[in-house]
This record gives sequence, C-alpha cells and structure tokens, in this order.
Amino acid sequence: MDMTTILPLLDYLGVAVFAVSGALAASRKQLDLVAFCFFGVATGVGGGTLRDLVLGLPVFWIEDQTYVVAAVLAAVVIYFTAHLFHAAWSRYRLLLWADAVGMAAYAVMGAAKALEAGAPAVPAVMLGAVTASFGGVIRDILANEPSVLLRREIYISAAIAGAALFVALAGLGVAASVAALAGGALAFGVRGGALAFDWRLPAYRNPPGRSIAETETRRAKRRR
Amino acid sequence: MDMTTILPLLDYLGVAVFAVSGALAASRKQLDLVAFCFFGVATGVGGGTLRDLVLGLPVFWIEDQTYVVAAVLAAVVIYFTAHLFHAAWSRYRLLLWADAVGMAAYAVMGAAKALEAGAPAVPAVMLGAVTASFGGVIRDILANEPSVLLRREIYISAAIAGAALFVALAGLGVAASVAALAGGALAFGVRGGALAFDWRLPAYRNPPGRSIAETETRRAKRRR
Amino acid sequence: MDMTTILPLLDYLGVAVFAVSGALAASRKQLDLVAFCFFGVATGVGGGTLRDLVLGLPVFWIEDQTYVVAAVLAAVVIYFTAHLFHAAWSRYRLLLWADAVGMAAYAVMGAAKALEAGAPAVPAVMLGAVTASFGGVIRDILANEPSVLLRREIYISAAIAGAALFVALAGLGVAASVAALAGGALAFGVRGGALAFDWRLPAYRNPPGRSIAETETRRAKRRR
Repeated sequence: MDMTTILPLLDYLGVAVFAVSGALAASRKQLDLVAFCFFGVATGVGGGTLRDLVLGLPVFWIEDQTYVVAAVLAAVVIYFTAHLFHAAWSRYRLLLWADAVGMAAYAVMGAAKALEAGAPAVPAVMLGAVTASFGGVIRDILANEPSVLLRREIYISAAIAGAALFVALAGLGVAASVAALAGGALAFGVRGGALAFDWRLPAYRNPPGRSIAETETRRAKRRR
Repeated sequence: MDMTTILPLLDYLGVAVFAVSGALAASRKQLDLVAFCFFGVATGVGGGTLRDLVLGLPVFWIEDQTYVVAAVLAAVVIYFTAHLFHAAWSRYRLLLWADAVGMAAYAVMGAAKALEAGAPAVPAVMLGAVTASFGGVIRDILANEPSVLLRREIYISAAIAGAALFVALAGLGVAASVAALAGGALAFGVRGGALAFDWRLPAYRNPPGRSIAETETRRAKRRR
Repeated sequence: MDMTTILPLLDYLGVAVFAVSGALAASRKQLDLVAFCFFGVATGVGGGTLRDLVLGLPVFWIEDQTYVVAAVLAAVVIYFTAHLFHAAWSRYRLLLWADAVGMAAYAVMGAAKALEAGAPAVPAVMLGAVTASFGGVIRDILANEPSVLLRREIYISAAIAGAALFVALAGLGVAASVAALAGGALAFGVRGGALAFDWRLPAYRNPPGRSIAETETRRAKRRR
C-alpha cells in the first residue's frame, strides 16, 4: 500500500507550514526566538497530536524527532527572514497561504489515518476537518488573535470538502496517492479561491440572540 | 448490568443538547452553516472526548458515527429554526437551559465511565465535573465569549453535586439507572435553581491581588 | 532505579504549586470556593495530563486520588489565606514564584517520563517544556488573562534549559536524582533570575506584519 510512503511526507509538509504560520504569529507579537519555536512547534504538531490522541495511536512526533526539529528549524528561519517578505507582501497574507497548504495536507492526513484506524466515513471526514483546523485554532488562542473560526471565512468548509473527496475516492477503491492528491487539491483550491476571491457562505442573517448584558438588564427590569 | 443501556442514551442526549448550545453560540456570532456544524460537533463531543482520553478508553464518536451525525443535525436544525425562539424567549436563555440538561447528563456519564474504568471516588467525581463543563468551556473559548467559569454562576458546583450523589449511591449498591437518574436530577435541579433564582455561592471578597500593570508600576517606583 | 521514588514527589510538588497558582488566579477574579478548586485542579493536573496523554501512559491522577485531593486542599487553603500575603507582597508576585517552582518540577518530570517511555532527546526536552507551561497556559486561558507566552518573559526558555540539562546528564549516565535536581535547579534559577532581574531575550525587532484590519483595508483600496 503506497499510503505508507505518502503519509510521512504529508506529515512533514503539514508540520513545516503550520510551524511557519505559528512563527509568523509570533513575529506579529514581536516575541523572542524561543517563543517563535514554541509557537512553531505547538502550531505545527497540534493538529496531528489531537488526531493521534483521538484515534488512540502513538503521537507521531514522540518517536521520530525529525518533526520537532523541522518545526524548530522553520521557526528559526522565519525569525531571521520574515522581514524580507514584508515589503512585497504582508506577512499576514503569507501566513494565510502557508496555512492553506498545511490545512489541505492535514485534512487528507487526518481522514486517511482515521480510515486506517477503522473509523467510518463521517467521523473520518470530521476528524480530517478538526485536525486541519486545530493547529490554527491553538495558534489563534495562544496569540490572542481573533480565531479563524469567527471570521466567517471558508476554511473548515474547504477541509471538509477535501477530506470528503478523499474518503469517497478511497471508498471507491482509487489508489491512496491519487485520492490524497485529489482531496488535497480540492481543499487547497477551495481555500485558495476563498482567499483570492473572497468567497463566502451565506451567514446566519436572523437577528442575533440578545447579548448576555442585554438579557440580564431585561430580567432585572422584569423583576422590578 | 443496566448501565450498558443507559450510558449510550445519556451520551446521545449530552451530544445533542451541547450541540444545540454550540450552534446557538454560532448564531449569536452570525456565522455560516458549516461553522454552526463545527461549533455543534466541538461542543457536543468535546466533554466526552476529554473524558475518554483521560480514562484511556476509545473515543466514543470514532466507532459510532451516530454521534457526529446527531450533532450536525442538531446544528442544522438550529440554523433554520433559532429565530423562531427569538420573540418569546431570548436565545441566550435557551442556551443556558439546554446547557443545563447536557451538563447534568455528562456529569453522571463522566463519573459512571470513570468508575467503570476503575477510578476511585474523588477522581470520578472530578472527571464528571470536568467532563460536564469542558464542552461549554471549549464553546466559550472558540466563540470568544466570557467563560461560564468566570461568571461566578453555580455550574460546576451543580455538576459536582450530581456526580457525587451518583458515585455515593453507586457505592452503596443502588441500581445504576436509579443512581444515574438521581444524580442527573440533582445536577439539573441545582443548576436550574441557580438559573431561575440567581443562587450564588459567596465570592472571595478580600481585596483582589494587584493587577499585573499595578505590580510592575510599583516595582519600577521601588527601584528609583 | 531511584527515579521511582523521585517522580511521585515531583508530581505532588508540581500539582500543589500549580494548584496554588490556579487558585490565586481565581482570587484575582473574586470567584467562589468551587471555582477556586476547579482552577486549582485544572492548573495543577493540566500539564501532567497532557504529558501522559501524549506519551500514551495512564493519566497520573486517575488511579491515585491523592493528586486531586492535594490540589483541592491547596485551593481551599488559598481561599482562606490569600489575603494574609497581600499586605507584604502582592499575590501576583507570589503566583509567579509558585509557578516557577512548579515549572521547574514539571520540566524535569515531563522529560524524565518521556525518556522512560522511550522518546529520543529532542521530543523529551520539548515535552518537558510543553508540560511545564501547559498548566499555566490553561490557567491564563480560563482566567482570560494575558498568556505568559505573550509577555516575552523567560519562562519556556527556563523550562527548556532545565529539561535539556536533565536529558543530557541522564544520557551521560548520571544518577537520575542528581540529574533531576540539577535540571530543576537550572530551570528555577533561570526563571528566578528573570523574575528578579528582568532578564529578557532579544525580541523580534523588525516591523511587525500588518494587522488583519490594515491588510483588509489595503486590499479594499487596491480594488477600487
């Protein structure tokens, strides 16, 4: 089965680009080199760690130190080179595109590992999406930035689309490498289209529920 | 042992109502349908996932896709119906009561699974409380809303009371179904009373420690 | 091997002091007694829980209820005595020093358990650092306070230094107790020096990337 050669490569790719996106978040907070590495490692291995824990597998970066080393190296490179990207292109845009690559790789990886571990289709797709977004969610929480979840961007939708295509193709007997490439390309394409053309899903447009403060004020009035 | 019939039902109940509370949080942020589903699934399975991980058990939603499907369905229903509740009753109040049901179910579930896995009484009660509150904590963190932990409401206290009653009754040899119902009823009753009558535990009333800014200012002065 | 006698003691120490730091955070938010206990337990066992999950080991506080009991007791003591420290010394400074002790103990513990579980050197050091900081990160997130990660203090660097010294000495065949004391002393010394003398690593000084708002504004202008 050729999945055994693809999975580690996707894992390295996901770790490295998520580490870059974590280090870029550290650069925007003007933190020190160790914080760059911490953000890089946490963002880089966070999604895959959750995936392995939920599936009951050995956590991938414990036995093979290449992953942590790769994340640290990526963070160090960003620490010394991030300013070079600045003039031409904002670091924030760079972060978004690096994140899109990692997201696509992890969406397929999460689904593939879940299928291998015996999960049915729906949890496999869900795990692909959760895994792909969890590194970024950790990064946003640690950096105290508005989470990508709240910005109403097409992000998780892209991960779900890619993971679902991979699971469907794998279920139809397509070779794992082809299914993985197709799923990853779909996830990246949808996310890239959203980044380039501001694609959005329709928002929930009904009047929002009252805020906590408003509710409490109304209750206090009712009592008087 | 009749616990084997009760536990899955409590799990479905907990997942569904927590998914509702997650989707309602998404409605207040006016997110899109996919985000509703993501918040629904994360809030719905979050507490039980932490419980299973900590106990070293297979994560409950991986093998049986009903859980994720149920959470997604609950989120989709909320996306299309949340505005119907709006006129009569604020969505925020609805969220609080749905949350109370899920909390009570999960407090008992967490403690029951912990006992089954061989944990002693104190960790079992703690795990019930942590499990019951973790879905809501995740929801609040992801939605960037003030955590229920900081609002000084009787929430975890209710979960602890219910889990402790369940553990005590189970330890006394009471049938698991009776113990579960009694524990769940106590947890829901305490939380419901707190919601309806604003019950509170006494707050820590001593002067709070200095804030970080104040401390730093004082230290700077001392040095001069 | 004398590590079997040291590890539980370090675990108790780490749980107790992290529980104190969690309870002190609750005191600054003027929460109730149950919240003190919840913050105490979550902060106290959080780091070790992540460590055990990632290593695939049974979670340490499930089988032995002493840990949860110790964290609860520490939180209760703080609830009734925190004001006594107030006049002479701000609670925030106390929290920082308690945190430094717990950090040093957990940095060594995390690395030691990782080595025992067969991890190579780099992941072992990383796990020491992650474990040492995770309780505090949870505490800061739950209390909605600025994370120690963003305050550009020497914290994780100290944990990395201590864990690395421990791993290096253990690799050279030094007795585990000596290696653990040396590593813990280095971690505490570096952190203590940073607290006392405001040691800092150089920050990333290049112009920060544009903020999200700025980027969006520029893109909108370009289109017009």
